[in-house]
Amino acid sequence: MRVRIGDEAKEFRTVWMESHIVKMINQSKLPHVFEIYTSFNHKQTAEAIKTMIVRGAPAIGAAAAYGMAQACMEASNVEFDEYVKKASETLRNTRPTAYNLFYAIDRVLKAIERGDSIKEKKVLAIEEANRIAEEDVGICRKIGEHGNKLIKDGYRILTHCNAGALATVDYGTALAPIRFAHYEGKRIFVFVDETRPRCQGSRLTAWELLQEGIDHAIIADNAAGYYMKKGEINICIVGGDRVVADGSVANKIGTYEKAVLANENKIPFYVALPTSTIDINIKCGKNIPIEERDEEEVTHIWGLSKGELKKVRVPPKGSHAMNPAFDVTPARYITGFITERGIKKPKDIKKLFKYL
Amino acid sequence: MRVRIGDEAKEFRTVWMESHIVKMINQSKLPHVFEIYTSFNHKQTAEAIKTMIVRGAPAIGAAAAYGMAQACMEASNVEFDEYVKKASETLRNTRPTAYNLFYAIDRVLKAIERGDSIKEKKVLAIEEANRIAEEDVGICRKIGEHGNKLIKDGYRILTHCNAGALATVDYGTALAPIRFAHYEGKRIFVFVDETRPRCQGSRLTAWELLQEGIDHAIIADNAAGYYMKKGEINICIVGGDRVVADGSVANKIGTYEKAVLANENKIPFYVALPTSTIDINIKCGKNIPIEERDEEEVTHIWGLSKGELKKVRVPPKGSHAMNPAFDVTPARYITGFITERGIKKPKDIKKLFKYL
Repeated sequence: MRVRIGDEAKEFRTVWMESHIVKMINQSKLPHVFEIYTSFNHKQTAEAIKTMIVRGAPAIGAAAAYGMAQACMEASNVEFDEYVKKASETLRNTRPTAYNLFYAIDRVLKAIERGDSIKEKKVLAIEEANRIAEEDVGICRKIGEHGNKLIKDGYRILTHCNAGALATVDYGTALAPIRFAHYEGKRIFVFVDETRPRCQGSRLTAWELLQEGIDHAIIADNAAGYYMKKGEINICIVGGDRVVADGSVANKIGTYEKAVLANENKIPFYVALPTSTIDINIKCGKNIPIEERDEEEVTHIWGLSKGELKKVRVPPKGSHAMNPAFDVTPARYITGFITERGIKKPKDIKKLFKYL
Repeated sequence: MRVRIGDEAKEFRTVWMESHIVKMINQSKLPHVFEIYTSFNHKQTAEAIKTMIVRGAPAIGAAAAYGMAQACMEASNVEFDEYVKKASETLRNTRPTAYNLFYAIDRVLKAIERGDSIKEKKVLAIEEANRIAEEDVGICRKIGEHGNKLIKDGYRILTHCNAGALATVDYGTALAPIRFAHYEGKRIFVFVDETRPRCQGSRLTAWELLQEGIDHAIIADNAAGYYMKKGEINICIVGGDRVVADGSVANKIGTYEKAVLANENKIPFYVALPTSTIDINIKCGKNIPIEERDEEEVTHIWGLSKGELKKVRVPPKGSHAMNPAFDVTPARYITGFITERGIKKPKDIKKLFKYL
C-alpha cells in the first residue's frame, strides 16, 4: 500500500520479514502516528498480535507465520522440536477468534515436518511463512481485479469498517476493488462509515484512502441510509469475517443495518472476501457465535488532543453500554461475493467450498 | 425531571423564571457537570440560547419567552416599546431553525399589545411566558399518558437521540411515555442509541434515565439492527422535529435507518411529538430542507479525561467529513404518532392540523 511520508510516497506491506526481524505497521498508533514496529523474536511478534499492533485476520495469520519462522531460527539444534512447539503455543494464545492465526501456524508446522535436517526445517519454515504472505497478497489482488469490474467511472461507493490493506498483507478485501478502480483512472468517491464503536472507518479506512489520494468523506454510521435514499450511493462493498453454508455473513457490527438499507433502496451490496473465510461446518447464520466486547469501547473514545493521544469518556458515569462486535447479514440482502475466484451469488457458496 | 444530587433526588425543569432571573440546566456541561445557569437579563438569556446552554426546540421557545419577559421588566417607561422590540430581535437572532423560538417571541409580543399601561404590559408578558412553559409541560404530560398505553410490563424500548425532558420544559416527548411507564411500576429496559455525531443519546438520554433510575444501556447506532433482529426490542419511540402533509417526519440523522430496520423486523415504530410540529405548508418529505452542519462534529469528540473536559480528533488530519443533521422518514415506516391529542396514524396528520 502507498504511504505518504513527507513529500514522498512509499510502498509498504502491513507485515513482512527481513532476515530474522519481523516488521509491521504499528496500527495501534494510526492514524495519528505512522511507525514501523520491529520484532526481534517470536515472543515480541506474539505480543504484537496480542496488543493489536497488527490486526485483521489475514494480517494476523501472516504475522503468526513469520513468528513461527523466527522461532525456528532461534531454536538450538538440541531442543529444536520442543522449542518450536512451545513457540507455536505462545503464538496460538494471542487472539482467540481469528481462524487464520491457527491455520497459518499449522501450515508452518506441517512444512517443517518435510525437512530431514534442522537446517532444512529452518529453511522450509521461512519459505512457508513467505508463501502464506505472498498467497494473501495474490488473493487480495485477484479480489481487486474482479471487484473493479463492478465499479463504473463516477461511482460513489459506501464501505463499512476497515477491510483494507491494513487488515491483510496488502491491497485489502473491500478496499482492493476501490484501489484498482482508482489506479485505472476511474473517478470514484468513497463514503466511509465511521464504524462505531472502534471507528475503524474513520481511523484506518480514511487513512488508507488519504494515502492513496482517493476522494472520500467520513460519515456518521447514521448518515449511510440518508445518502442511500438520496440516490448518492451506487454500490456498497464491505468485507466479511465468516460466511456459512446458507450464504449469510458475519462482519463488523452495523453491516446488517447497511445491507437492509441498501436492499430497501435497491443499491447493490457486495461482500469482498477470500474463499478461506467460508465455514461450511456452520449450516445457518444464527449459529455463528457473536463476540460481546468491553463496554469501554462504546463509552470511551481516544484521539488526538493538542498533539497528545487522549481517551475521553462521553456518557455519564453509571450508564452502561452493550457492545456486540459483529452481526450476521442474511444471504437475501447480499447481491454477491467478490472472491479471488470471481464474483459469486450467495447460493453458490457451497460450490465454492469444493475448491478449498 | 428528577435529578440526583448527592443522596437526594430533586425535581427540576429545564428552564424556569424566579422574579426577573431566568434559570436553566446548563446542557453544555452535561452529563459530566450538573450546573444551573443563571441569567440576569434578556441579553444573557439570548446568549444562553446561542451557545446551546439550553437546546431542544420547545425548551428554546420557553427560554425565549422568559427572555422577552425579562426585557419588559428591564425596559423604562419612556422607551418601553423600542427596548422590547430591540430585545425581540436579539432573541430572534440566536438560532436560525427552531420554529418554537419565533412562535414564543410573537406570542409574548401579542400579549403585550393587550395591556393599557406599561405596568399592565409587564404583567401580561410575565404571564404569557409562564403560560408558554406551562402549556409545554401539559402537552408533554399528555404525550406521556397516551404513549404509556403502548408500553407493556417487561418491554424493551429503543430510542434515538434525546427527545427528553432536557429538550422540553419537562417530561420530554419520546421519553415522556417511558417516564410514565416507569412511574407506574412497569419493568422496562431502554436501548439508548448513542446518536452520532453529537451523541445526544449517550450524553443526555442516558443522563436522564440514570437520574430517574430507569434501566438502560447505551449501544452504538450500528447495533440497533442487531438487537431488533434478535427479537430483543418490542417498540421504538423517537421524537420528531417536523411532520409534513404526507405524514413523513424530519428528525435526528439515523431515525430513517432505525425506522426501516424496525419495519423489516416488524417492530412498531412510534414518533412522539406535539401537534405544533405539524407543518402543513410542506406537501412532501422531500421538500424539507436538511441542515448540513460543521464536519468537526464528526471528526472531533469531547468528553472527560482524568477529570477534565477534552476534545479529541479521531480521523487523520486531511480526511474530511459530511454531516447532515437530520433525515426524513417516510410515513410508510411509521406505525403512529404519539401526540397530546392521542395516538394517530400518519394518514390522519392533516385532520390533526385542523385543531391547531
